[in-house]
Amino acid sequence: MITSSAPGKVYLFGEHAVVYGEPAVPCAIERRATVHVESREDDRIRVEANDLSLDGFTVTYGENPDEANVDVPGDLVEAATGYVNGAVEQARDAADAPSAGFNVEIESEIPLGAGLGSSAAVVVAGIDAATRELGVELSADELAERAYRVEHEVQEGQASRADTFCSAMGGAVRVEGDDCARIDDPPELPFVVGYDGEAGNTGKLVAGVRERREQYGFAADTVEAIGDLVRQGRRALRDDDVAQLGELMDFNHGLLSALGVSSRSLETMVWAARDAGARGAKLTGAGGGGCIVALDETTSTRLALEYTPGCEAAFRAELDTEGVRRE
Amino acid sequence: MITSSAPGKVYLFGEHAVVYGEPAVPCAIERRATVHVESREDDRIRVEANDLSLDGFTVTYGENPDEANVDVPGDLVEAATGYVNGAVEQARDAADAPSAGFNVEIESEIPLGAGLGSSAAVVVAGIDAATRELGVELSADELAERAYRVEHEVQEGQASRADTFCSAMGGAVRVEGDDCARIDDPPELPFVVGYDGEAGNTGKLVAGVRERREQYGFAADTVEAIGDLVRQGRRALRDDDVAQLGELMDFNHGLLSALGVSSRSLETMVWAARDAGARGAKLTGAGGGGCIVALDETTSTRLALEYTPGCEAAFRAELDTEGVRRE
Repeated sequence: MITSSAPGKVYLFGEHAVVYGEPAVPCAIERRATVHVESREDDRIRVEANDLSLDGFTVTYGENPDEANVDVPGDLVEAATGYVNGAVEQARDAADAPSAGFNVEIESEIPLGAGLGSSAAVVVAGIDAATRELGVELSADELAERAYRVEHEVQEGQASRADTFCSAMGGAVRVEGDDCARIDDPPELPFVVGYDGEAGNTGKLVAGVRERREQYGFAADTVEAIGDLVRQGRRALRDDDVAQLGELMDFNHGLLSALGVSSRSLETMVWAARDAGARGAKLTGAGGGGCIVALDETTSTRLALEYTPGCEAAFRAELDTEGVRRE
Repeated sequence: MITSSAPGKVYLFGEHAVVYGEPAVPCAIERRATVHVESREDDRIRVEANDLSLDGFTVTYGENPDEANVDVPGDLVEAATGYVNGAVEQARDAADAPSAGFNVEIESEIPLGAGLGSSAAVVVAGIDAATRELGVELSADELAERAYRVEHEVQEGQASRADTFCSAMGGAVRVEGDDCARIDDPPELPFVVGYDGEAGNTGKLVAGVRERREQYGFAADTVEAIGDLVRQGRRALRDDDVAQLGELMDFNHGLLSALGVSSRSLETMVWAARDAGARGAKLTGAGGGGCIVALDETTSTRLALEYTPGCEAAFRAELDTEGVRRE
């Protein structure tokens, strides 16, 4: 049996604006999806997914996803199955073994559907483990590329390269259009994540920003301001200026809020974090619900979030400089 | 005895950006300060201020402000005395009666120090009542100008013309630099105000925006985006498009939040209003604490705010098309 893991991610800066070619900085976090893969005698796939979340729900399903024993929405299960099937197909293709069968077991510390890149981590780790089980080693770059193809297909063309690249390579990443690169020597980033247990509708949120941007010049300018803020953020990363990174996170959050992608619970968590002394806090990902990320090297923000109504889970998740990893 | 009243105001759009020559739209609200003035035999001034707030505090003071019976911070009392003295001096000057003495009694429905223009309303109504008591009638324009001089002096050069102009003229106002004009035929604006009982430090908040604007190009762009949003808002006012006004208020709030002038309680109230079905909601005034303004023709937002922790007072305060008024 072969085991690989890959990290989830948060957006330090730039979600939504990245859709319009502005730069963004996703960062891998020390929360991983782990995938165990074992070849089968036949050509079938058996998937067992345990503990796909930090808190509150579990998915277990066998050969027939319809019989899954779950307390999560069906579309998440369907998506998860789609990601695993896609990863297996990529592995079969890479190893030129079109009829290879596998038993796949998934464990994840990354809340599902929370904008932390859980699917990208499962796909990256899954392709890595399955190809290695077939005796083939792919570079992190190729894993990122193949994982992106899977996400692109499952998410019907809406996927960004950021999640899969970030999960495969680890560290802080500079994304601009289809161009992804690791940022050298980022400072330690003491991320704290707060999760409201909800999931915004990414497609609708992205469409809402597009509509505002087309309707109003000042909304288009707001998207561009995010891009400029991200460029400043990259300088602050290079200068190890964690205080400025926090300030820029706060500013970025306000611009996202102006674009209509915040929510009451996200705002509540962001302000709980700031009041607790976080250097900065913002929503991360598509918004509308899901997660916030704060910077705090102390335990105050996590504790404050744990006592914040509407925050279902709060955890530390430092920058993970390692991407996909053999376990 | 002569009695005049003048309205408070909210910013529909544009606070903070107005400091940099961008347009803003303050609106008079149906919450008034009423000033009764009576000539005295001597040249002294006696001020009695009752119920200077909606909720929670009362100021009463006589000839010696040091002996004031108050449960508000001393600097507010000092400021209030300064405003009344300034108004009396303007009236003496306008009526060429340098040694006229008055008994002045103030009643106000406008929370003090909450960014609703209570001082401007007291000054406008005070000058009007005192000049009329001396047999002189000033135009609303001249009242606005003289009231501005008082605010300018008391606030040590930081005053904007918006508050005094808006209070003297009533209605929705277009401010750009020193240029103020009434907006013709605005739609009915069903304002609801939520007040957290706090007062941000205006000087510090203005300085914070200035610092960010000087430090970061994207912050300067954010200030400009507010200006463009206000221009769009003026078109929406002309078109009676209340739905769009709400959307623009939400966007304006996000940009203000990005500039660092929101607060936890303001954000809580803004989201309570939005969740209650308000068409839009934003902080109003300098921020950092104080008031939010929402648009809602139903009673939902006011009720929701009344049950929102941290909201000390919630009230309806429709657009007041009348400015200073004889009572």
